[in-house]
Amino acid sequence: MNIVIVGGSFGGVHCALKAKELYPTASVCLIDKEKKLGYLPCGLSLYFNHTIASLQEAYFLQAQDLLAAGVQLELDTIVMSIDYENNEVITTRGNFTYDRLVLATGSQQLSSRLKDDYQDVLTYKDVTSAEYSLKQLLQSDSVAIVGAGQAGMELASSLRYSNKKLVLLESLSYPLSKYFDDDFLQPFLTHLKTYPQVTLYSRETVKQVKKICPPKRFKVTTQRQEYEVDTVVLATNVRPRDVDFFDALQKNSDRTLATNEYLETSIPGVFAIGDLIQLPLKGTNEKIYMPLISHAIQTGELCAKNLVSLQEKMTPVVRTIGTYLFDYYLASCGLTEEEAYMYHDAPVISRIDLLELSAVGTRQKVMRVKIVIDQTSHVILGAQLMSKSPILDKINVYALAVEQELTIDEFKTGNYFYQPQYTNSLKFSDIFRQKDVDECEL
Amino acid sequence: MNIVIVGGSFGGVHCALKAKELYPTASVCLIDKEKKLGYLPCGLSLYFNHTIASLQEAYFLQAQDLLAAGVQLELDTIVMSIDYENNEVITTRGNFTYDRLVLATGSQQLSSRLKDDYQDVLTYKDVTSAEYSLKQLLQSDSVAIVGAGQAGMELASSLRYSNKKLVLLESLSYPLSKYFDDDFLQPFLTHLKTYPQVTLYSRETVKQVKKICPPKRFKVTTQRQEYEVDTVVLATNVRPRDVDFFDALQKNSDRTLATNEYLETSIPGVFAIGDLIQLPLKGTNEKIYMPLISHAIQTGELCAKNLVSLQEKMTPVVRTIGTYLFDYYLASCGLTEEEAYMYHDAPVISRIDLLELSAVGTRQKVMRVKIVIDQTSHVILGAQLMSKSPILDKINVYALAVEQELTIDEFKTGNYFYQPQYTNSLKFSDIFRQKDVDECEL
Repeated sequence: MNIVIVGGSFGGVHCALKAKELYPTASVCLIDKEKKLGYLPCGLSLYFNHTIASLQEAYFLQAQDLLAAGVQLELDTIVMSIDYENNEVITTRGNFTYDRLVLATGSQQLSSRLKDDYQDVLTYKDVTSAEYSLKQLLQSDSVAIVGAGQAGMELASSLRYSNKKLVLLESLSYPLSKYFDDDFLQPFLTHLKTYPQVTLYSRETVKQVKKICPPKRFKVTTQRQEYEVDTVVLATNVRPRDVDFFDALQKNSDRTLATNEYLETSIPGVFAIGDLIQLPLKGTNEKIYMPLISHAIQTGELCAKNLVSLQEKMTPVVRTIGTYLFDYYLASCGLTEEEAYMYHDAPVISRIDLLELSAVGTRQKVMRVKIVIDQTSHVILGAQLMSKSPILDKINVYALAVEQELTIDEFKTGNYFYQPQYTNSLKFSDIFRQKDVDECEL
Repeated sequence: MNIVIVGGSFGGVHCALKAKELYPTASVCLIDKEKKLGYLPCGLSLYFNHTIASLQEAYFLQAQDLLAAGVQLELDTIVMSIDYENNEVITTRGNFTYDRLVLATGSQQLSSRLKDDYQDVLTYKDVTSAEYSLKQLLQSDSVAIVGAGQAGMELASSLRYSNKKLVLLESLSYPLSKYFDDDFLQPFLTHLKTYPQVTLYSRETVKQVKKICPPKRFKVTTQRQEYEVDTVVLATNVRPRDVDFFDALQKNSDRTLATNEYLETSIPGVFAIGDLIQLPLKGTNEKIYMPLISHAIQTGELCAKNLVSLQEKMTPVVRTIGTYLFDYYLASCGLTEEEAYMYHDAPVISRIDLLELSAVGTRQKVMRVKIVIDQTSHVILGAQLMSKSPILDKINVYALAVEQELTIDEFKTGNYFYQPQYTNSLKFSDIFRQKDVDECEL
């Protein structure tokens, strides 16, 4: 059995490793255009956060990890076309025949509105563009970041103490709207205003980016106004990387590759994973595009299980994220209330609480929590967490509860540990000493 | 409806609050012998840990929290007897009639072997004994702690930098054996030896404690040797507090009160909760004594649901703990391997791994994990975690998985967040760069 995987980021790598684990005698060949595998798309933010000292550390694995597992690597290799009739991948370094083919070419940052201005905006999802962007950013005193989703906010946050003037331009009415409801996010948005170098402009759609030369600056034009900055970074939503050899495959209206529940495309024996496809969303009957690393890993491993025979269906996913932005920990799983109104087929209710994180000592350690539940069944549909204390691991408990369709009551009576420094037994109780939930500084 | 609850620690308090929430028009009366409710039994450790500045801060709630919820408080009140025929509680401050009675008098530290030496050993579970013990400990240069379970180890850990010579005497072959297997605990036990002031003696059963006067010191005699110290603290397993008015009730062989699945005792309308009873243990067909604060809360709230009519049965519990001992975070849930051999009715397998806690940056952040699963079904029965990094919240994800009877595969493919600073996608993979699991310093 010859398994060929095109694309060596999270999806491709985890598919290759799982395939080798399940079918030790199969040949598993991983093709990637980069010389070096495993670059982290958030490398630039990790650098400015001082988590890493150079972009060369922004790798989640080494080639030898794959070689040691018996995966054949074809790096620095560009796929030019695929002959689906004869099961052959044609590349710059020769042809590879396959019994099963996995497409894992991932996503790219692009804005359809700015397609004529690409030479002037920076991207940073792959190592080459990140290295160039890093050089430009180090020389810039003012930066416009287009898009205040998770990627844009993480980049802005990593630059918050850098003394650069930051302009965040978001086309929607508030940042991070995929993962958080407006009402939940208020204390964070208030806090964001305390950073003198950072200005967030919502409902600003960038129409044009133009170089002004000399001086070497850029003019960003939105539907409302113009901004002059040294550098413009694109951090808008990613889209599936579109390549010619996808033309033979059936696509959804959002340009993702259509797959069945086993992640097989319209051509039998050809699978697609990660940022190329839509996934079913837990709590709804929808399939939507959710390009997250965790989903790339999950679909990569599931795909591996289906390569020899179609074994396991993709089950609805709980979209779970956790991040650290502007000195706040923020995490979310499942549906926001906004999403639940749109996609959940029954009425929902929600509640925001401020919970104390310990029963003694530093009383100011609190966490803001929003829970969205089905009004009738009380099954948890989603949760949002925010704190100045490190609470990210807590979101995984909520995520598992959403996945297992627990009711809020079942969730609360779970068998969790009690330790007065780290827990507060009154947290779910109605007599909880609740401060004014919206006014309270976390 | 008159509900009377005897005992105002975690079980009684949470039962009272839940009862008031469920039956707003019922009268809920909470009787306690202390003047002030809500003392934390680990107050002494919190004090020496510098989490609190005085034992007066070691309270998990205030009387006004209960009063605000509409609970009637009868403090500084000692129950002398109970007339079960006429539904009457006779106390030092008058008689209280009830329709439903909840017994929540909790547990006490005592060692049957040392029953003649009580005047000479310190205990600290209630505020009066804790205050006396604190005074004695502050004047002591050497301390013997009898019992190296969670309570004894937490006290020893809180004193680790206090310059007192600490002698820990444990009758079993290693400390914390309720929650951790011997093989899992090895790196911690090795680390424990690096504290010059602390000496752990295992397999030492204390036979006698005798005052030597003058000087005001104590001689502790075990089956092996004698120790001379300034102070002796008892931190052995707690037992149900035994009082005369339990005589009319049926008991188990371990002196716990016998209850049915609704937590009702042998007398209809009389319930028992918390540290007075046994609970069914998840993954087994056993009922055992598991005196934990989390179980007191859980049984208190469940009992409240059953007060008007028997509504909800106690389901098997996953025993979950998390603690910080000698600069290590330690957490456990479900069955240890040792327990699984004894109580689980099918073969089990286990595995110890060393997992990296982030994909980038400080590579030395690792967590030691032991998972115990059913050999045939692969359902997770228990987990043990250890790290120098704060990982306690992670045990709740495992606990929920054990409770929901997830297989190890279902657990691993859960929808958790990915963030390279806080997670490592290769952690469950077989190519994980595993150091020598037992040798590695965490």
